[in-house]
Amino acid sequence: MTDVHSTIASVKGFKVSGIHAGLKADGALDMALIYSDTPCMAAGVFTTNLMKAAPVVVDQETLAKNSTHIRAVIVNTKCANACTGQQGIDNARQMQRWTAERLGIGEDEVLVMSTGVIGTQLPMEKIQRGIGLAVDALGAENWEAAARGIMTTDTQPKMASYRAAQGYSIAGIAKGAGMIAPNMATMLGLIVTDAAANYPEPAAHIRNPDLGDMLHSGAEYSFNRIAVDGDTSTNDTVLMLANGASGISARYNELSTQLDPVCAHLAKAVVRDGEGATKFITIHISHAFDYDDARSIANTIATSPLVKTAFYGGDANWGRIIAAAGRSSAKLDPNKLKLWVSRGEELRRELLLFENGMPTAYDENEASAIMHEPSIVVELDCGSGEPNGYTVWTCDLSHDYVSINGHYRS
Amino acid sequence: MTDVHSTIASVKGFKVSGIHAGLKADGALDMALIYSDTPCMAAGVFTTNLMKAAPVVVDQETLAKNSTHIRAVIVNTKCANACTGQQGIDNARQMQRWTAERLGIGEDEVLVMSTGVIGTQLPMEKIQRGIGLAVDALGAENWEAAARGIMTTDTQPKMASYRAAQGYSIAGIAKGAGMIAPNMATMLGLIVTDAAANYPEPAAHIRNPDLGDMLHSGAEYSFNRIAVDGDTSTNDTVLMLANGASGISARYNELSTQLDPVCAHLAKAVVRDGEGATKFITIHISHAFDYDDARSIANTIATSPLVKTAFYGGDANWGRIIAAAGRSSAKLDPNKLKLWVSRGEELRRELLLFENGMPTAYDENEASAIMHEPSIVVELDCGSGEPNGYTVWTCDLSHDYVSINGHYRS
Repeated sequence: MTDVHSTIASVKGFKVSGIHAGLKADGALDMALIYSDTPCMAAGVFTTNLMKAAPVVVDQETLAKNSTHIRAVIVNTKCANACTGQQGIDNARQMQRWTAERLGIGEDEVLVMSTGVIGTQLPMEKIQRGIGLAVDALGAENWEAAARGIMTTDTQPKMASYRAAQGYSIAGIAKGAGMIAPNMATMLGLIVTDAAANYPEPAAHIRNPDLGDMLHSGAEYSFNRIAVDGDTSTNDTVLMLANGASGISARYNELSTQLDPVCAHLAKAVVRDGEGATKFITIHISHAFDYDDARSIANTIATSPLVKTAFYGGDANWGRIIAAAGRSSAKLDPNKLKLWVSRGEELRRELLLFENGMPTAYDENEASAIMHEPSIVVELDCGSGEPNGYTVWTCDLSHDYVSINGHYRS
Repeated sequence: MTDVHSTIASVKGFKVSGIHAGLKADGALDMALIYSDTPCMAAGVFTTNLMKAAPVVVDQETLAKNSTHIRAVIVNTKCANACTGQQGIDNARQMQRWTAERLGIGEDEVLVMSTGVIGTQLPMEKIQRGIGLAVDALGAENWEAAARGIMTTDTQPKMASYRAAQGYSIAGIAKGAGMIAPNMATMLGLIVTDAAANYPEPAAHIRNPDLGDMLHSGAEYSFNRIAVDGDTSTNDTVLMLANGASGISARYNELSTQLDPVCAHLAKAVVRDGEGATKFITIHISHAFDYDDARSIANTIATSPLVKTAFYGGDANWGRIIAAAGRSSAKLDPNKLKLWVSRGEELRRELLLFENGMPTAYDENEASAIMHEPSIVVELDCGSGEPNGYTVWTCDLSHDYVSINGHYRS
């Protein structure tokens, strides 16, 4: 297994900052900037929500024109710049322009991200001032400040880094907390590497389409596998920049294999810090009728309020898990289902609760003990011939989730 | 409009009871029995969950053999008899048999319903004793006791009755509270009428297939339009019995038109008493691209935890409503959407919040005042040419929902 750290020292050729622009009332960091000394190959994965936020539209346009010379990403919190019409688009472009001017680079070399409340316009004076502060604060070792600068209801900054034996690094920051569904999240992720991504030899080294493929694949097994509340945000974006500053060219398969656990580390950090979360839950479906069924069952269980409140209460109410599977629209033979719960995060099939269409003679105290653990694995084997494994990471639904989201805008 | 009452005096030829069989620890009523002096035409609509509870399986089998001579329905709470394998089926049949024996009728003249915890076997000694008590307690005017005898986490008994000018009555009881999704609910409903349902003249009077059609139609515009938490139960069942004791034959169109508001009254009562609910919310979608899209948008909004917590907090965070529409998988043109909120339960388009892809210049205090009302209407016009109206009733997501469901089994 690769060794991914929860901190970031530095990544060659990248300077970053996190500053307070006056967007958050409590004085916390509320904007972040990522800057590369040299042009980056860049790729992005974006929300599937039809109500795309203005920064998503602008980034997609920018990457369509220029995905080989990206130099910077500017991020603001507190306002998502979503459902803001033409003025929102104009404001996102202005944010891009101001950042380019202050950095002395081209407008189409800057990407923008916003997160926060939907349906309000960006406070442009504060944004302009913030961009100035963020440029002034750039430094190679400011990754924690940058990670804090993109937080909304997150309680912890989310960082991941991996130092490859080949001599290059991969690092990333993310924010999550609520509006997290399978298929992205109110999730912003920003991954950088100093591996070379634009070497001339096509087959052996990373070219731009490869970077996109790699990021999509990395996201598919990480950010697309997490659920806090099942709501998909208008702003979900994961960007990846590769500046080649290490001077080392990475092979596609190697870099892709190293990227996956970095993405997974960030995705799991998002779930662990889900709004009000008290438990980390791994849901693994095996032997479903087909892959889509496995995904459907996993996501239905992961987003069921009844399942999630039972986990919060430490109640081994496994019937709700079986009932969620039953309403998932997947084909199922009730008599072939087997359900286990286990401690921790590994697939261990520790305690069998259900088989042959009915509960086993399991020990209720043992089940309750497992349900009170901070990390729990749910494994459901659907009993068909094909493996069709699918994993989703989720958290419980607590009183605090309701408190946080009942008054988010205030 | 028809005049539906929230109480039931009596319905000719029906005797009912609600008793305490010792299933609930607090001594509350926990079983109910509905009995008709004469054979009834009967029909049912059942859960779409693949993990059908044993009583659902048994009722579907019974109705397939005999839907023209049903005499009784026995109901227990506290145990859903779901995910209980062959023993569960045997127990449901035993419950049917005991009821038939005590009433001196045939086994296949009895239907059974169970609600409560999934995955435990019925406590058959208590059930047997309860059946005896329920038969002994039968009376024409015990409808409130019967309605109380089917309650789980419901805080109020749910009854509806309508006295037709033609001289017959329609009445029903229901239970809901949690595990309520569009497409039924942990919802048990039992509707009776003394209108004649087996008259010989085919066209003018109700025959058995008609009763089923009528009930399906009634359910489609009521029980299938409500959402508490989006979870679909293993036990959802609505039964309808028609005994003809009034001696009056009802015309299909008339009875169907009268049945709909009785179903709607019960369905709304389920939402009003949703687990932890503090607000009653009507969501109406119009001018979606097609009918399926309208339903998909309405149900996505109604089951979004972020939307529901914002309603709980009285926060006019309408961006979450728009974002939920955007992720619903329906086709949408963001710039054609219009969103209103209104006080009460009627479609009034009181305050326009969003159009042309951005917020209007609405008064935030006015929006907040509406969001603090106990009943709120959300209207979303998607701007396509066709009306495609679709309404869902739902409630907010509160701290109490989490408390109730975190420890449901204890």
